[in-house]
Amino acid sequence: MSFDAVWAELAPVGLAASGGYCRFAWTPVDLELREWFAAAAWDRGLDVTTDRAGNQWAWWGDPDAAAAAGHPGVATGSHLDSVPDGGGFDGPLGVVSALLAVDLLRSRGFTPSRPIGVASFADEEGARFGVACGGSRLLTGALAPDRALGLRDASGDTMADALRAAGREPAEVSADPETLRRVGTFVELHVEQGRGLADAAGDEPVALGAGIWPHGRWRVELPGEANHAGTTALDDRHDAMLGYARLVLAARTSAARYSAVATCGKVQVQPNGVNAIPSLVTAWLDARAPDEHDVRMVVDELNALTAAEGGRFYEESWTGRTSFDAALLAQLRDVLGDVPTLSTGAGHDAGILAAAGVPTAMIFVRNPTGVSHSPAEYAERTDCLAGIEALSAVLARLAA
Amino acid sequence: MSFDAVWAELAPVGLAASGGYCRFAWTPVDLELREWFAAAAWDRGLDVTTDRAGNQWAWWGDPDAAAAAGHPGVATGSHLDSVPDGGGFDGPLGVVSALLAVDLLRSRGFTPSRPIGVASFADEEGARFGVACGGSRLLTGALAPDRALGLRDASGDTMADALRAAGREPAEVSADPETLRRVGTFVELHVEQGRGLADAAGDEPVALGAGIWPHGRWRVELPGEANHAGTTALDDRHDAMLGYARLVLAARTSAARYSAVATCGKVQVQPNGVNAIPSLVTAWLDARAPDEHDVRMVVDELNALTAAEGGRFYEESWTGRTSFDAALLAQLRDVLGDVPTLSTGAGHDAGILAAAGVPTAMIFVRNPTGVSHSPAEYAERTDCLAGIEALSAVLARLAA
Repeated sequence: MSFDAVWAELAPVGLAASGGYCRFAWTPVDLELREWFAAAAWDRGLDVTTDRAGNQWAWWGDPDAAAAAGHPGVATGSHLDSVPDGGGFDGPLGVVSALLAVDLLRSRGFTPSRPIGVASFADEEGARFGVACGGSRLLTGALAPDRALGLRDASGDTMADALRAAGREPAEVSADPETLRRVGTFVELHVEQGRGLADAAGDEPVALGAGIWPHGRWRVELPGEANHAGTTALDDRHDAMLGYARLVLAARTSAARYSAVATCGKVQVQPNGVNAIPSLVTAWLDARAPDEHDVRMVVDELNALTAAEGGRFYEESWTGRTSFDAALLAQLRDVLGDVPTLSTGAGHDAGILAAAGVPTAMIFVRNPTGVSHSPAEYAERTDCLAGIEALSAVLARLAA
Repeated sequence: MSFDAVWAELAPVGLAASGGYCRFAWTPVDLELREWFAAAAWDRGLDVTTDRAGNQWAWWGDPDAAAAAGHPGVATGSHLDSVPDGGGFDGPLGVVSALLAVDLLRSRGFTPSRPIGVASFADEEGARFGVACGGSRLLTGALAPDRALGLRDASGDTMADALRAAGREPAEVSADPETLRRVGTFVELHVEQGRGLADAAGDEPVALGAGIWPHGRWRVELPGEANHAGTTALDDRHDAMLGYARLVLAARTSAARYSAVATCGKVQVQPNGVNAIPSLVTAWLDARAPDEHDVRMVVDELNALTAAEGGRFYEESWTGRTSFDAALLAQLRDVLGDVPTLSTGAGHDAGILAAAGVPTAMIFVRNPTGVSHSPAEYAERTDCLAGIEALSAVLARLAA
């Protein structure tokens, strides 16, 4: 099946009126994507399983026999879920490229001596329950099942509720070392989310990942005092929105000072009435930098500002610097030639697997505008095809 | 029936876990309040009607005969709806006091020579559809039915949808001059929403209203460009939240400069994801001042800032200065003695009726903390009883 045909199958699933995608974990849209993946694997004669963390795997060959023999498989893949109003490439390009790389290898008569697996990770964006890479973190044990199952979405449903509604049994969620043991090597292909390749010298459609910046999410609660917007003198007010506004501007200033990025992208206001002074603003901060010390300096400054505003600061997630496997990177460079190497500010399931000790690498496909997490996210068709060629060449080497 | 007993009947209706009230127009909670009002009027043998704008009226005597004879009725009352997480006094104290003032007059053997009416206005806070005093504005023609019926709540339902769900026919909504003709005089009792009485010399439980500050609501749309929070360099961002933060702080600075109050109490963010740069922030501004010129200066400054941020500024409602009827005020002062006179920054249905040419007055009951639009809103029981005494004395004079 051609790239165009596969892409056309996925295009309508979860498409919003804006042109962006809303594909959130364990929703009906997500279940449709899961069925699509299972059918695509079935059509190729791959063995499909869902692990105890909810991630889907499709294997060409017997990964348990290979692991028992000391030659565990080569896995590739990414995720199918999206941020709210996200693009169609972030995630799906890696899953689709993995399936088409398998097609390409078979059409060329390749027979793997190690099994090749295609993964579709659950809940990578964390759009619904607030923790990114939920599926891979549960798989490796980086996220405790109790904590995950108790996470709530915006309408108050827990992940346990969502799993039940999707026909899954929450009590069966756990880390899954049996699944992890099958994965001797992991290579994730992903659309680039900045302009590293587009701005680089040369005209390369793909790059290799060197590592992932340290990054985290913090929740900030800024209290105020509810009162009437028309009758309360300015001096008598304790308006939580003013503290929030200072936090937003300070996040930008601190990030610039420490060569980091920091974003206040999500906010909830109580009571959120036009004529009511806000009594509580809950804000979320996303901060990242190439250097861990710099992220910590930004966060420390904003934590201090929050304390001065009478608020509280909670770390929701933290991932230190991820460096991908040096020996694996050398192998990929040997296959692909002298393509650029990039570090990225975006978290990925590949980073979670690398942190769990799996030799891991990433391949990035050029993003001409650098725009991501947006309906305008885009990659050229020819670059996507070059990505599939690169991935199949890498798999051919690693599974030979 | 005693004040305590009536108050206890209303206390549980629409009570949220916070201790505040969520009583929004045309919801099941609102319908329960409407049934309560109709039953309370019925118990007193008053004639209950609902006007074409959805406001409820309970008459002691025949207001049409009186109006035809050139002696239209004396009406009092307020509203039962609330802001999100509001207090229990803002609105209900006026409705309950009106009913209990009727009880008091009857218990003392008073026979009105002009009919006395008790009003419960619909949708005063505008918490659901964004336009305050919706019921009284529709009644007087200040709000066009087409515009009102097309207003949408946070879940996308129009007021027409809400009316249908409440068993009312949207096509029948209109201005209602027949109802208005019955009201020769209107007196609204309301809990004070600032500390004017609490801070005043003397120890007065009630004050008279002199007028209502000019006030309005504006909607501000600030556009940004959706992108990934981890991979987009600070210089490449167009983050709508930064413009919003500048607007919030500028609103405070401008208000202080012009002796006004200005509040950014409500905000909606798209896509509102932790790791997505906001592509659109929609904010609401509430601004008021004793002097109309000062409000306009604040709004002009914020409009200019919005334009500089590439945003758009819409006036959702505007009400000029309301001065209550001078001759009526003199009559009330004659009844109540030398009580304080206050102007207020809060809008009221009394202001809408005054603007429509109905001779109108207000009585404020002391608020010891000045807190309103909050679960902490409060008035002392003895002050509430003093308010009922004052209202009954006023009605006795006006309906004699």
